[in-house]
Order: sequence, then C-alpha cells, then structure tokens
Amino acid sequence: MKKIINKPDDVVNEMLKGLVLANPEKLSAVYDKRIIYRKDPYLNKVAIISGSGSGHEPDQAFYVGRGMLDAACAGPVFAAPTLDAIVDAAKIVDRGRGVLFLVKNYTGDRANFEMASEMLEFEGGPNVDTVIINDDVAVKDSTYTAGRRGVAGAMFVYKIVGAKSEEEGVNLASLKKLAMEVNDNVRSMGFALKSCTTPAKGSPTFDLGDDEIEMGVGLHGEPGRQRLKHMPANQIIKKITDSVIEDLPFICGDEVAVMINGLGGTPIGELYIAAGIVLDMLKDLKIKVFKTYVNNFCTSLDMEGCSVSLLKLNEEFKRLLESPADIPVRYF
Amino acid sequence: MKKIINKPDDVVNEMLKGLVLANPEKLSAVYDKRIIYRKDPYLNKVAIISGSGSGHEPDQAFYVGRGMLDAACAGPVFAAPTLDAIVDAAKIVDRGRGVLFLVKNYTGDRANFEMASEMLEFEGGPNVDTVIINDDVAVKDSTYTAGRRGVAGAMFVYKIVGAKSEEEGVNLASLKKLAMEVNDNVRSMGFALKSCTTPAKGSPTFDLGDDEIEMGVGLHGEPGRQRLKHMPANQIIKKITDSVIEDLPFICGDEVAVMINGLGGTPIGELYIAAGIVLDMLKDLKIKVFKTYVNNFCTSLDMEGCSVSLLKLNEEFKRLLESPADIPVRYF
Repeated sequence: MKKIINKPDDVVNEMLKGLVLANPEKLSAVYDKRIIYRKDPYLNKVAIISGSGSGHEPDQAFYVGRGMLDAACAGPVFAAPTLDAIVDAAKIVDRGRGVLFLVKNYTGDRANFEMASEMLEFEGGPNVDTVIINDDVAVKDSTYTAGRRGVAGAMFVYKIVGAKSEEEGVNLASLKKLAMEVNDNVRSMGFALKSCTTPAKGSPTFDLGDDEIEMGVGLHGEPGRQRLKHMPANQIIKKITDSVIEDLPFICGDEVAVMINGLGGTPIGELYIAAGIVLDMLKDLKIKVFKTYVNNFCTSLDMEGCSVSLLKLNEEFKRLLESPADIPVRYF
Repeated sequence: MKKIINKPDDVVNEMLKGLVLANPEKLSAVYDKRIIYRKDPYLNKVAIISGSGSGHEPDQAFYVGRGMLDAACAGPVFAAPTLDAIVDAAKIVDRGRGVLFLVKNYTGDRANFEMASEMLEFEGGPNVDTVIINDDVAVKDSTYTAGRRGVAGAMFVYKIVGAKSEEEGVNLASLKKLAMEVNDNVRSMGFALKSCTTPAKGSPTFDLGDDEIEMGVGLHGEPGRQRLKHMPANQIIKKITDSVIEDLPFICGDEVAVMINGLGGTPIGELYIAAGIVLDMLKDLKIKVFKTYVNNFCTSLDMEGCSVSLLKLNEEFKRLLESPADIPVRYF
C-alpha cells in the first residue's frame, strides 16, 4: 500500500487538521471527537449535521460552511461516528431552533444518530430530528444496510436543505419535510473498476479481476447487483443510468439535476466522458437538464469508478441548488 | 487497463463533448481541432489562451470561463495541440486587443505556440504574445523539456492574469508583464506513488516498485530527481516542500498562497494530510499563508501522488486571486 499518510490510525485526524489549517477563518474542530463545525457566526437558523465513516471525502466534513452543513461528525475510516460526538456536535451548532441530522442509510450510522437523539431528548435538548437518505437503487439490502443505501444523492439533500435553512430560516419540521422530499426525488447507482484499499487493511477491500467491474457497488465496497466483464463506457454508463431512470421513474418532460460522482481514484476527464453519455441519453428521452455536477462528491477512498445521480426538480429545488454555498472544498 | 472510456482515440473528444454538454450556456467547442472557448459575451479585454496535451484535467479546458481563460487548445493525451488549432483559437477569442498565450514549458507545446504566433503575424493578426511557465524546481532539463518544466504553478498564472484582464482591462504588454511576474514568484515540486496509464498504451508509463516513489516526477511521468523508498507522508512532504522553499527562496516574513495539487488518482483526503504538513512547516518558518488551495488542479491522468506549489504574494496578486472566476470545474 502506498498512500500519502503517516500511521493508519492517524489518517482521519491528520486530514481534519489539514482541513482546518487550510480554512482557519471558517472551520473549527473538536479533534478527539472528530467534529468539524462552522466558525463563522450564524443565528436564527436550524442547524444541519451530517456524519458517517471517513473515506468518503469531500463528504461530509468538506461541506461544512455557509449554505450547506453546520457540522460534520467524521467516524474512523468506514465506521460510524460515535454517539457522544454526535451529541456534542448538536450542542455546539444549535442556535435554539433545533438541529436536523441528515444520515445516509447505514445501520451503524443510523443507530448512533438515533441513540444521540434519545440522549439529547433525555438531557432536555437541543431539539433534534433525523432524515435518512437512501438514494441507491442498486440493491435492497446490503452488507451494512437494511433497505437501500445512501450514496451521492445525499449531496443534493445537503445542498438544498442547507440553502433553505440559511436563506429562508424555516423551522425544523419544514426543513425535515424538505429533506424527505429531496430524498424521495433522487436516485443513484454506481459501479467500480477497482476496489478501494483502506489504510488499516492495506490491501484491496474486495477482489475484482483485471477484466471485471462491479455494477451497483456500495461506498465501502459492498457487493452490487452484478459482476460483469469490463465494457466500453457507453455500455456501462447506459446500464447504470437506465437503472436510475427506471426506478423513480424519470420520464419525458421531467426536469432534472445530474450528478456524475467519481469514487476517488478516477480522473475527472473520465467523469466527463460519462457525463456526455448520460446527457445524450436524457436528451433522447426528452428529460430536461437544469444543471450537471461532475466531480468527486462522495467517494470510497481510492476506488475507481463513478456513480450517476438524478434529482427530479421543482422550482424550489432549482432556486436552492443555485443559491451560493461557501464550503471548504473548492477550486478558486 | 480499466477506464471509463470507449476507444482510446476518442477519449479527448468525448471528454470535451461532455464538458460542453454539461455547460451549454457557457462553453463552445471546435471539436475537430479540440478548441474549447467561452460562449458568454465579453468585450474590451485581452484574450487569454492556454494549451497543452490532454490528460492534465482540469488543466486547461476546465478553466475556460469568466475571470480565467478565454480558450483552451487541448492536444491528444500528452501531446501538443496543433499549430492550426492555436491559430484558430486566437482568431475566435480575440476582441481586437490581442491574445496572450500562457504555455507550460514543454518543447512540443512551445514550438507549436511559437509557430502559431509567427503565422498570425504573417497573416496580419490578431496581435499575440507568449509567456512560458516553468515553476517546477525538480530538474533543469527533462525528457520533453529544455529548462524547467511547467506544472501546477501555472494555475496561479491563469487565475491572476485572467482576473486582471477581466476586471481591469489592461493591455497585452501589461498582462504579459504580470504573467511573467507571477511565474517568477511561483515554485513547485511533486512526487509519484504510482505511474499513470495512458489510454493508448494501456500499461503504466513508467515502472515504480511497490515500495518506491519518484521524487520530482514530471506531469507525463518523466523522471524526477531521485527514486526513493516509500516513506511516511511527513517525510515525503517535508522533502518536497523544502526543495520548493529553498529554490526561490521563500523566507521568514513572506506571504504566500499554497497549492496542494493531486496528480489525478489520489483521494482528496490524502491531499489534506499533505496540506497540514506544509502549513505546519510554513508556520515554523514564519511564512504567512494567505490562502490554501487543495484539489486536483493539474493532473497526470490516474497518477497517484501530489505536488506542492508556493506563490510569493504582493497586494495585487492577493486581490486578483480573490476575484471570482466562473469556470466549469466546480462543486456547487
């Protein structure tokens, strides 16, 4: 294993430290609990927290900032954040209007967020509520999940709900309703060309032959729908996108946002090849594209491959997607 | 080789097509010449063009937009753009005030930009001038280069010169002077953990043992200064950063912008570990950090590793770095 790391145990904390040092005016951390939170002043808004295992960067610590998340709880690589980290994060970011937890559907994450909610209720506050995100159409149940998994579609939830809370100051119940509505309208599926390698294990998480791909792979290397022979991009991306389209289903006349999400080790040039294929398909189906997002949004360490997400839009979603966010992950 | 591609020969055009389809209001292309240019109206500014082989994305087609480049000429993977593409791009983007070519120092790119300049002079316009960028401190001469190579520091040149032209409308001579001044103040060096694989060859460009790293690697896999045994991040990043700091040199009291640039296959989490190390070093040296840029800015396909760039700042550079750019590569 060759990575830009020191000791495997220190990977998450050193990454979070780099993130805070690179954004000293915007972010603070509680390092021993791996909490990243906004330092800029904000008032009179429901706070938004997401959390999950690390290794999916920029998801989710790199989305903490004005117009998106107020805090992120980072677990160890591919392991849930702790109960007390979630409790502390909620207390740190609450401004008296409550906290919404946005949680991708993995059993460990759900359990800890649920226990944190119970503990906060027992302690008398802050007031919290949770929305579970489960956009992955690949499989019903999975290694770490009952029901569908939450993957890159969660980014649309963070963005839309973050903008709503920041710009329009609605209450916790309205924000929860909006988050559920976004989740109801987003679908995703991905595939892997190459497994990821966790720092602790030091070897690939799953075996994939030199000529094989895993269709519907999970964000931690969980098995997908099928293992197929490697194919040209046109065929792979069409299969993935068909599965996404058929699921909601997205139909002629719909307006969508498209996300092509790299899994960490795939160059952005290849992601744009995938984008071209998806956009041609949508044009043929007369599904209107409002905006296309192409980048590494929700990754699996150094896994190679990508996912396709579609979000069916309404005017509110469009307005909130276009609202500016000031987040640490950026170019210029 | 497993990549998200169709035929190796179609990789660049399909990528550029995806880029334009994803940004239909902002970008246009001349596909047979692999020119990407701004579609939004702009007037009364010197136009800025960069060009080089493809495979370094987002450099440079993904930086075409308001406040940065007006066009990019993309060659085939790792090969210079053609003479006539450069000539045509200059004619497309010129608004009567001339065109500045920003060219990373590779022999093939220089030759074609130089011939294009001569041809445009012979044809009577537009008026063009060229600045060669050579920020890589690793080696003096290299496989494809006489003198130092141009690497990620070029992004600082594009950004600062792009903002100056867009916001302040200076003439070609002033803009050239500014580009040279940025180039004089930026230094970079990188290293590889793993070679890239070009679509055409289908196997790694160079051999690197399972326990080896290439210090000072070039953007096309050219040999660097030394091949060393793999080391903890603290040691690798310190060596790279020391080489960068000693070269200008950057000294106590200087104010800098820092760029940690992924080479394409390295997850952003690891880049932030590198960022933390660099920022700690600069703090110890009492070199003040104005802003830190961490992402894949100038890559080598799927190469793993990163580079560190430092730019010594003045008030003008700071103002222009902070000026907004509207470019296709983005998050939200």
